[in-house]
Amino acid sequence: MSTHPLEEILHPRSIAVIGASGNNNVPGYQFTASLLEYGYKGEVYPVNPKYSEIVGLKAYPDIRDIPGPVDYVISCVPASQVLNMVKGCVQKKVKALHLFTARFSETGRKDAAELEQEILQEARKGGVRIIGPNCMGLYYPDEGISFSDAMPKKSGTVGLISQSGQLAEEFGRYAAMRGVSLSKAISYGNALDFNECDFLDYFSQDGETRVILMYVEGVRDGKRFFTSLREAASTKPVVILKGGKGRSGTRAAASHTASMAGSQKILTKMISQAGAVSAEHFEELVDLAAAFNFLPPISGFNVGVAGGGGGSSVLAADQCEASGLDVIPLPKEIREELKSKGSTIWDWIGNPADMSIRDSRDFGPGDILELMAGNEKFDILMAIMSDPHHERQKGTTAQSYLKGFKLEGLNNKPVLAVVADKALGVEDYDHWSWKVMCDLRTKLIAENIPFYPSVKRAATAARKLVEYYQRKR
Amino acid sequence: MSTHPLEEILHPRSIAVIGASGNNNVPGYQFTASLLEYGYKGEVYPVNPKYSEIVGLKAYPDIRDIPGPVDYVISCVPASQVLNMVKGCVQKKVKALHLFTARFSETGRKDAAELEQEILQEARKGGVRIIGPNCMGLYYPDEGISFSDAMPKKSGTVGLISQSGQLAEEFGRYAAMRGVSLSKAISYGNALDFNECDFLDYFSQDGETRVILMYVEGVRDGKRFFTSLREAASTKPVVILKGGKGRSGTRAAASHTASMAGSQKILTKMISQAGAVSAEHFEELVDLAAAFNFLPPISGFNVGVAGGGGGSSVLAADQCEASGLDVIPLPKEIREELKSKGSTIWDWIGNPADMSIRDSRDFGPGDILELMAGNEKFDILMAIMSDPHHERQKGTTAQSYLKGFKLEGLNNKPVLAVVADKALGVEDYDHWSWKVMCDLRTKLIAENIPFYPSVKRAATAARKLVEYYQRKR
Repeated sequence: MSTHPLEEILHPRSIAVIGASGNNNVPGYQFTASLLEYGYKGEVYPVNPKYSEIVGLKAYPDIRDIPGPVDYVISCVPASQVLNMVKGCVQKKVKALHLFTARFSETGRKDAAELEQEILQEARKGGVRIIGPNCMGLYYPDEGISFSDAMPKKSGTVGLISQSGQLAEEFGRYAAMRGVSLSKAISYGNALDFNECDFLDYFSQDGETRVILMYVEGVRDGKRFFTSLREAASTKPVVILKGGKGRSGTRAAASHTASMAGSQKILTKMISQAGAVSAEHFEELVDLAAAFNFLPPISGFNVGVAGGGGGSSVLAADQCEASGLDVIPLPKEIREELKSKGSTIWDWIGNPADMSIRDSRDFGPGDILELMAGNEKFDILMAIMSDPHHERQKGTTAQSYLKGFKLEGLNNKPVLAVVADKALGVEDYDHWSWKVMCDLRTKLIAENIPFYPSVKRAATAARKLVEYYQRKR
Repeated sequence: MSTHPLEEILHPRSIAVIGASGNNNVPGYQFTASLLEYGYKGEVYPVNPKYSEIVGLKAYPDIRDIPGPVDYVISCVPASQVLNMVKGCVQKKVKALHLFTARFSETGRKDAAELEQEILQEARKGGVRIIGPNCMGLYYPDEGISFSDAMPKKSGTVGLISQSGQLAEEFGRYAAMRGVSLSKAISYGNALDFNECDFLDYFSQDGETRVILMYVEGVRDGKRFFTSLREAASTKPVVILKGGKGRSGTRAAASHTASMAGSQKILTKMISQAGAVSAEHFEELVDLAAAFNFLPPISGFNVGVAGGGGGSSVLAADQCEASGLDVIPLPKEIREELKSKGSTIWDWIGNPADMSIRDSRDFGPGDILELMAGNEKFDILMAIMSDPHHERQKGTTAQSYLKGFKLEGLNNKPVLAVVADKALGVEDYDHWSWKVMCDLRTKLIAENIPFYPSVKRAATAARKLVEYYQRKR
């Protein structure tokens, strides 16, 4: 397999930020400062005739004034200046140009769309490849490249291809809270030159990426997309969130990234036929990232649930079943085991294991999870972990949760935890119980256990993961 | 209309807790202590032959030893002692007995079910009404009655009827975080005597309750339930969450509250035909409570959305549309207004109003919301409020959010805010940005604006609210 052209482009020896700025409220500052803050090891050249120095670096009036070679350019200049700037890039033998610059074809204006095409022709003639325009470009923590100071510094093995820069940033931040770190993310906006297929091909080959996520608003070439997608999905899990599904979303996508309508139904079918996974909304993209990041291939839908009280066990069963998991009855052999251990409710307990009327002689959620983990009928386990909320529960710690659920080292069966996110207000924020839950999330990540804010979201992610691996076989 | 028998029962002059305890880890302590903590003004009599004093109150060996009259009894004794206890209640002319005591018919054991029936007969003969068994009973903050120290002390105008005590408590706590307070809540478990219809009839008449919420696992008498429900829903909004929908949920409901299967399809149809609202899951019950609590009757589905960036505007449009709202194009007159105000992107901006490429000369989300609020084409507004996350945003406050969205005093059009709940871990918890969001939630409640963790949940709640009021007309 030959090396993908993006491999060299994403490892630039030097980066110039054209339209760099000393004003920390503008992107020209943020792109420059982020390169320093994230530890980029190559040369950084701010370009702006109005400055002699930016963020402590010598600034150049024009790219042609930079002494050394420039591999990669980030453009923050207005759209009207881009064509002239491309000429400079060509002279400087730049390999790739990231156009953060916006207000091109997405405006719907004829002159802007024509300018965009002129820029493409000029770059093509000169051998300069383009990422964008109208996008955030590259986030690559191991190379010290970030498009925002809000992105995590820790790298992982999930790769993100996002037509939207805003969503790439939100994903990076929120996924980190769920224990998911990125190998790299690329926001590509209007996809004037490099498009979704190029990035998919690249991530498919990329040894640093185990799972591929995509946010796409439009696909230029359906046939090529299907081929790239099928190839990628046969190599590693690919999860796709399509933006612009209905009439209003399609309108919004056109004005956001100049994406064409494209039938949502065809695309959904294409994703499924290619063996990739569809995410219904942004939250589900994060949920599926957590599932594929932490869980091994799972071959069946049988789930064992423990930890809830009476009502929440009933609702957990409903939500698991509605989401496509099988909440099988508690196997006879587990009941017998409970009976032999002296449980007073061995003939009553079920799956989900309702803990509400047990007494001190009965088992806890960890005991039942342990029995389920040891029983071949179960494929997946779900631990429902509610926040402590009585004064008498003071002293409860994240550690006591892990112990009570016996989640440390429970590695013979995949587990999903349910830990609700709550709408904390000022008073709640200072309550000890929520600090315990925050600590619990951090500890679950350390145990490599994905957690979800609701049973429904946990069950949906698990079902889609099982479907992916079943299709793959 | 004659006064409902529950009216007197829920205003007891005195309460005895039978099986009260001085051990703060058991329910017999918690029920007694809560009456004092929540400020119940009547007499409280702990009953337990092993104590002379409990929580600072004189304890009695038997209910018959209590000097004054006893209107209401909370039973925490084991199931085997209940029959004998009922005899004491009859002698003492108790009006109502709340059986927290469990392990009756829900165990699936024949002898337990028979005992339950004997208890009912004994109580009926003696004129004692029963709430339960296997439930938490009454929460009535204005009367100073609570079944748990975790319930809020503030009262409101939403009434909750819940077959599950655990969910009643979770609802009370989580709804409060969304600004929803309860007039009263009743958890009624196995519904041996008073059942869902009695409570529905009562809440329907109750002047303290504007909105009725229900969690039911089983309905004993479908015909009567339909009649009560139709009557209640014609008076005030009624929202119902049914627990026990599929095979496993039905199994779990049987062992939780001895509820019979009952076809979910029939019940869903019944809820809709009666003019009530179905909640799909627990989170939606809270969402709908917030909608009916804060929003006026809304007559149409046309929503105006502002505040998001490019990608989130596309996804917001998709989610609103998929949830049944109409994301209408931005009216021409609003574009003209923006043009006249000097906007550089007046011909580009849409609905949702993507804020991503605006510059300093353009409007903010508050300006567009204001224009939408003044335009008759919009029925509902949605404000997408993302957390601040750049270092340069430090100094952002909840107050600046309210100002930026012009949400103070925007009272000519109903607004739903979207403020994401996030899976905070230890590091995030201490970050300034999340404190701002907590403060924002508190301030939104003060402005009577309901907030939702996602566009999907906001849009679904809004659509169901509009449907309720459209059906009612």
